[in-house]
This record gives sequence, structure tokens and C-alpha cells, in this order.
Amino acid sequence: MKELEIHAPLVAELLVRFLREEIGNVGFERGVVGISGGVDSSVTAALAARALGPDNVLGVILPYRASNPESEAHARLLADQIGIRVRRVDISAMADGYLAQEKVEERMRRGNVFARCRMIVLYDLSVEFEGLVVGTSNKTEILLGYTTQWGDAASALNPLGDLYKAQLYQLARHLAIPEPILSKAPSADLFQGQTDEAELGFTYEAADRLLFRMVDERRSRRELEQEGFAPEFIEHIARRIAANQFKRVPPIIAKLSHRTVNRDFRYLRDWGR
Amino acid sequence: MKELEIHAPLVAELLVRFLREEIGNVGFERGVVGISGGVDSSVTAALAARALGPDNVLGVILPYRASNPESEAHARLLADQIGIRVRRVDISAMADGYLAQEKVEERMRRGNVFARCRMIVLYDLSVEFEGLVVGTSNKTEILLGYTTQWGDAASALNPLGDLYKAQLYQLARHLAIPEPILSKAPSADLFQGQTDEAELGFTYEAADRLLFRMVDERRSRRELEQEGFAPEFIEHIARRIAANQFKRVPPIIAKLSHRTVNRDFRYLRDWGR
Repeated sequence: MKELEIHAPLVAELLVRFLREEIGNVGFERGVVGISGGVDSSVTAALAARALGPDNVLGVILPYRASNPESEAHARLLADQIGIRVRRVDISAMADGYLAQEKVEERMRRGNVFARCRMIVLYDLSVEFEGLVVGTSNKTEILLGYTTQWGDAASALNPLGDLYKAQLYQLARHLAIPEPILSKAPSADLFQGQTDEAELGFTYEAADRLLFRMVDERRSRRELEQEGFAPEFIEHIARRIAANQFKRVPPIIAKLSHRTVNRDFRYLRDWGR
Repeated sequence: MKELEIHAPLVAELLVRFLREEIGNVGFERGVVGISGGVDSSVTAALAARALGPDNVLGVILPYRASNPESEAHARLLADQIGIRVRRVDISAMADGYLAQEKVEERMRRGNVFARCRMIVLYDLSVEFEGLVVGTSNKTEILLGYTTQWGDAASALNPLGDLYKAQLYQLARHLAIPEPILSKAPSADLFQGQTDEAELGFTYEAADRLLFRMVDERRSRRELEQEGFAPEFIEHIARRIAANQFKRVPPIIAKLSHRTVNRDFRYLRDWGR
């Protein structure tokens, strides 16, 4: 899809500056990235290495005992190529400390616990490494809510959040992310054989095309249908965006005063520093 | 301080409606509250019980092996009084699954891990109980950043976030929160003998007085000094508010398109649903 084509060298340069400036502005020089062996975290780590220097980036490999060993192999392949430091923390004891104790069997619940355990490790190591946690969520998954709130969606800053999955692949090729990472099917690797597209029930390509028209170009339903999108698919995607709005915002605070946090009291410049 | 006096029955009624409406609006009837035996979570649970009915509220007691047993006793005292359901999940195996494995000794880091493990349990049980996680952070601690990001600060909605600690006590007395909870020194109970005020280095009373003038009334530094606040205290509090701004906002997304999540794409009404 032509509209989703990006000028990858320019986007890379903008995101490198974003990382350098936003991290520097709050007094830090380093970043921590959970590297899963997937394309999103590989691109994030590669951008961070360019922005901060490889020695200032810690890539954290966070396997659970049932994780596909290929994920770790790909994460190491990426880390070797870009020259960042690597730490491996197995989350099995932590996750099972809850899941086994309370006998949680449901896949979705287990997946959310894994994602949140990984957040705990990244944030804890960020204190030791004196860096900020750099997020890896892309625009497609943020809009669809295909993330775990307070889990993989939690970070200090996110360079990829305004790039659709298709755009991310263009950036990944420009950054020379290793071929095995680019050619495998995207997967959260939360259970065996999982792929994002099988779980979502549609392809990223189809979702990106529709999301771009719907969100970025604000096309009406009628226009979208005239362009050939199936009404059920439009409805399904629109519902997902609406149903997952809660994941994109901070907790709602009951308004009682005239200076409520996140409503009237939003920005530091508001109160005259 | 006169300005911090609230009309407790009215505030209680407003917050009960807030909980009922916000939870109902997204199709839920139930709430989950982590009850620590402290005043904040006691007030939250009492409001939720009024708003939703006691059977629709799950109070979760989340001890770590080193927690003060008095905390659990007070949580049970509260739960008995307001008649909500109770579940107890010991987070020791989960927290130590990381802390012991990686030999994390630093108090602050351990405290953050505990707070985030508790978030994991509350969010997981909210799926089973079909409820929303109701937050317990008050305005004093949100402004001071005396919270764990993605830990106790994480919730679906927060009835107390616009009430200073002093105001919360007025509400607590109106709601007849048990006396032992009201009379003990506030503590996060993350280590033995911890009290909030000793850790912060100032009293809640002093902080509330200054925060109200600074944030709600937007007084200048000169005015605050003329009122008798010590310049060092003003500077210390102002720095805390600024330094903890990151905890009050979602991850910063690098802007690339003209419809970036949390900047241009904020509210669902924006895109014509």
C-alpha cells in the first residue's frame, strides 16, 4: 500500500534523535530494551544503539520455561550484530510463583502475567543500569489493543508507537535487522505455535490498510465500504479500537477540585515553573 | 487547615456515583480493590461497597512474608465491617522468584517489585471476578510521586486521586472506617518499621498545606514564602512534583504522523463514532 511507504533513512534519523533527546532531557544516557527476538524489539534496540551508543543499551532476554528457544537465539543474533550488552533473566520462578500457586490455566491470563513479569524485570534493571525503559509497541497493536496494559505497553518512551507494522518492516530492512527475524511470522510467543495473525483473525496487512484510512485519514464508514473494505471487518476493527481505549490512558481520576491531575493539572508549564 | 475541609457526606455521594457510573459505562458491575489495612484502600473499598453492593466488591489481601501481620488484621477488620468478599494471595513466591534469584537487596527496588506483583494479582483476579481494578492513590502521593509506576499507581479508575491525605481522613471518619486504621501512622509496609512521613522527611499535614496552595491555588513562590513556607521546603516539593511527572503520563510516543496516539488521537469522539 503506497500510503504506508516511509522514507526509512529519514524515519530512522528522527527516531534516533527522539531517543537521544527524550532520554537526555530527563538526565539519562542509557536505555533498557526487552529483546524478544521479534522485529519490534529488534528495531527498538537497533535505534537505541544508534542513539545512545551500544554500550549504553542493555538488551534483556526474558524467557519463560515454555518459550520457544528460537526467540532467545534470535535476540542474541540481534544483540551480537548491534553490539549491545545482554542480560538474561528467566521469569519462570516469578511467574509460576503466582500461576502455579493459584492454578491459573487460562492462556490469556497467563500471557498477561508473563508480560507484566517482564515489565517488573525491565523496570528493576533500569535502576541498576541507570537507564530508561524503551518501549516496543507499534501503532497497529496500540490501536487494536493487542498489548498487555502495564506489561509490554508500559515504558518511559516509545519510538515505534506511530509506525504501523508494515512501516516497521521497512525500517527494519533499512536497519539491516537479521533476515531470520524479518522472515518469521510475528508471534508474542506466549504459547506454543502462537502467531499474531492467527490469534487476531486477520493479517497485519489488512489491518494496517484499514487503520490508516480510518485513523490517519478519518474516512467515514461509507467511504471505507466504497473502497472495498468489508462492513464486518470495519465494524470489528472499530470496536477493537473503542474497546481498548482504556489501555491508552492513565487511570480515570474522580474530579473533585478545579485542579485535578491529568485533567486541569497536566503539564508542568501549567503551574509556572 | 480550613481550605482543606471537605463536606464529607457530599464527597462520599459524588464518589459513589463516580464508581457506579464509570464502572457501569464500560459494561461492568464489579470492582476489585487491594486492601492493605491502610486508610486509603479502606476508604476505597468502603466507597466501592456502597456504589456496587458488598457482594460485587472483591477485597484482595496481598501479604509478603515480611509484611506486618497487623496489616492483614486491619484489612480483615475493614472487610468484615463493610461485608465485602475477601481473597488472600501471598506474593512471596512470586516476588522472591525474582528478588532471590537475582539477589536484589535494595529497599526501594524491592518495594517496587512488591507493588508491581500486587498489581499483577489484582489485574489477574479482575478477569476471574469480572470486575475493574479500583485504585487507591490519593492526590498527595500522586503529586509527590510517592507511588510505584505500573504498581499501586495502576488501576482502571481512581476515586481518591483528587483528595489530599488530610481530606481522605475526613472522608474516612464519615465512612466509619475502624479506629485502629485511622489512628496508626500511614505506612507502605514495604519494610519493618517504615512510616510514610519518616521516609518522605516531612509530615502529610505540611505537604498538604503547601500542595494545596501551590497546585490548587497556583500561588507564586514569593506568595508562598510570604505565607511562611520555608524556601527549601517549597523547592523540595516543587522538585518532587516535577521529577515525578513521568509517573502521571502514558509512555511518550515519537510523533511521525499527523494522528499520533495520545496526542492527536485522544478521544474516541474525535474520530466520529
